[in-house]
Amino acid sequence: RSSLTLGEKEQVNNKNGEDKQVVASYWGIKGQEVKKEDGTPWKWNCFRPWETYQADLTIDLKKHHVPTTFLDKLAYWTVKSLRFPTDVFFQRRYGCRAMMLETVAAVPGMVGGMLLHCKSLRRFEHSGGWIKTLLDEAENERMHLMTFMEVSQPRWYERALVFTVQGVFFNAYFLAYLASPKLAHRVVGYLEEEAIYSYTEFLKELDKGTIENVPAPAIAIDYWRLPADSTLRDVVMVVRADEAHHRDVNHFASDIHYQGHELKDSPAPLGYH
Amino acid sequence: RSSLTLGEKEQVNNKNGEDKQVVASYWGIKGQEVKKEDGTPWKWNCFRPWETYQADLTIDLKKHHVPTTFLDKLAYWTVKSLRFPTDVFFQRRYGCRAMMLETVAAVPGMVGGMLLHCKSLRRFEHSGGWIKTLLDEAENERMHLMTFMEVSQPRWYERALVFTVQGVFFNAYFLAYLASPKLAHRVVGYLEEEAIYSYTEFLKELDKGTIENVPAPAIAIDYWRLPADSTLRDVVMVVRADEAHHRDVNHFASDIHYQGHELKDSPAPLGYH
Ligand SMILES: [Fe+2]
Ligand SMILES: [Fe+2]
Ligand SMILES: [Fe+2]
Ligand SMILES: [Fe+2]
Repeated sequence: RSSLTLGEKEQVNNKNGEDKQVVASYWGIKGQEVKKEDGTPWKWNCFRPWETYQADLTIDLKKHHVPTTFLDKLAYWTVKSLRFPTDVFFQRRYGCRAMMLETVAAVPGMVGGMLLHCKSLRRFEHSGGWIKTLLDEAENERMHLMTFMEVSQPRWYERALVFTVQGVFFNAYFLAYLASPKLAHRVVGYLEEEAIYSYTEFLKELDKGTIENVPAPAIAIDYWRLPADSTLRDVVMVVRADEAHHRDVNHFASDIHYQGHELKDSPAPLGYH
Repeated sequence: RSSLTLGEKEQVNNKNGEDKQVVASYWGIKGQEVKKEDGTPWKWNCFRPWETYQADLTIDLKKHHVPTTFLDKLAYWTVKSLRFPTDVFFQRRYGCRAMMLETVAAVPGMVGGMLLHCKSLRRFEHSGGWIKTLLDEAENERMHLMTFMEVSQPRWYERALVFTVQGVFFNAYFLAYLASPKLAHRVVGYLEEEAIYSYTEFLKELDKGTIENVPAPAIAIDYWRLPADSTLRDVVMVVRADEAHHRDVNHFASDIHYQGHELKDSPAPLGYH
């Protein structure tokens, strides 16, 4: 057995003076050399070139699922009643609003993906691709957050609020998903409809000039493959298109449950941003 | 707004007689036409061609992290003490053993990935790629399960056991990761060392002929890009190589914590199977 203690590894490190790198290569893990399409080095660790994409801006922004059943109405009015305090809190600070709400938006995909993963293991069943679809949604929302962080900085009480809201929302969504995935996906569908509305308001403020149309953050240009001279407006456009895709995926997931199927019975829309 | 109620959507469905497909296309979600490299249709929904890979069989199978600190020893002896009841339960039924243990193996990556995701959101921080690395590990382990399911079928009491073990292990690992990610990743590193040992025993039984070397399941041939005439032995070889990679990633993650860093400070080994 080729064994080294941590002590020995540290000695090797100190000798070479390349601390982290040596431990990494001891475990056979070489840092991948990743390049951009133009040959310059890739500067992000949190996402890689093969995860970037061009948003589909042609998506219908006005599609709406009319609530008819009791569960649909419950989902609809839950979301509508959350809208009021949110509007009061943020007023017209749409940059701040986007940043704060994306920390919440990235939770449902992770919870749903995790629960389906555990179910697939427990029942020895295929997933139909839904685990990946939901985890991808969570990752996409987290990239929205990484983007808006560059435009707006959270203050200490906003950080405290995010901390609390995540604790409450994670557990509420977890329980809701266990009790009724039909309801949970419908709630997310309606949340995304509201998100589209808010981003449309954001665009109006940018066009009026009440919010400054600053250059797009570098991370957004790389993630959505935007032209180098893109602005915040372009970023809000692609983010809004993403939300429309999440809306479709989640209403679709809810519909599958309404038809008495499980998600795994209907192939997931993979790579559908 | 282009609004349809579920009732109207169902009418559309009945008219066309293509139930699921129509709801899908109403939400603008078209089933992707995925093809294999040879042009034949792709038959799996739970994974796609771009997630397949060739295992690196040259990886050192004997690498071992010598436990020196108290936490390392705790991790090591926890794993060693779990080995004994497992050996008694499974004896030499390595096919069954592999299937059952992969349901457990797919938990840590999901728990770790989820916790890092929530932390990244809460703290407005980049992940360094570790969320994806850990979620990929969970997915890879779940593919091991999907493979061994084809070779061995769980009986009802084995299903019950998996159900219970998942409940206990998920929560135990969740709490361990919250308390000490350093310990949690070290435990997984040692679990993977044991997995390599078990798969080596599995190979010995296959070579002795006590376990029949059946043809490789179709899902394994597509996932690891194996030749069409591969056997169970070839599958165990690539699975064992995967475990060796998980061992390296998790010991590496634990080492990063030992050096007083957080995972996000050291780029994650993405796409490292
Ligand atoms: Fe978002
Ligand atoms: Fe969204
Ligand atoms: Fe495995
Ligand atoms: Fe493993």
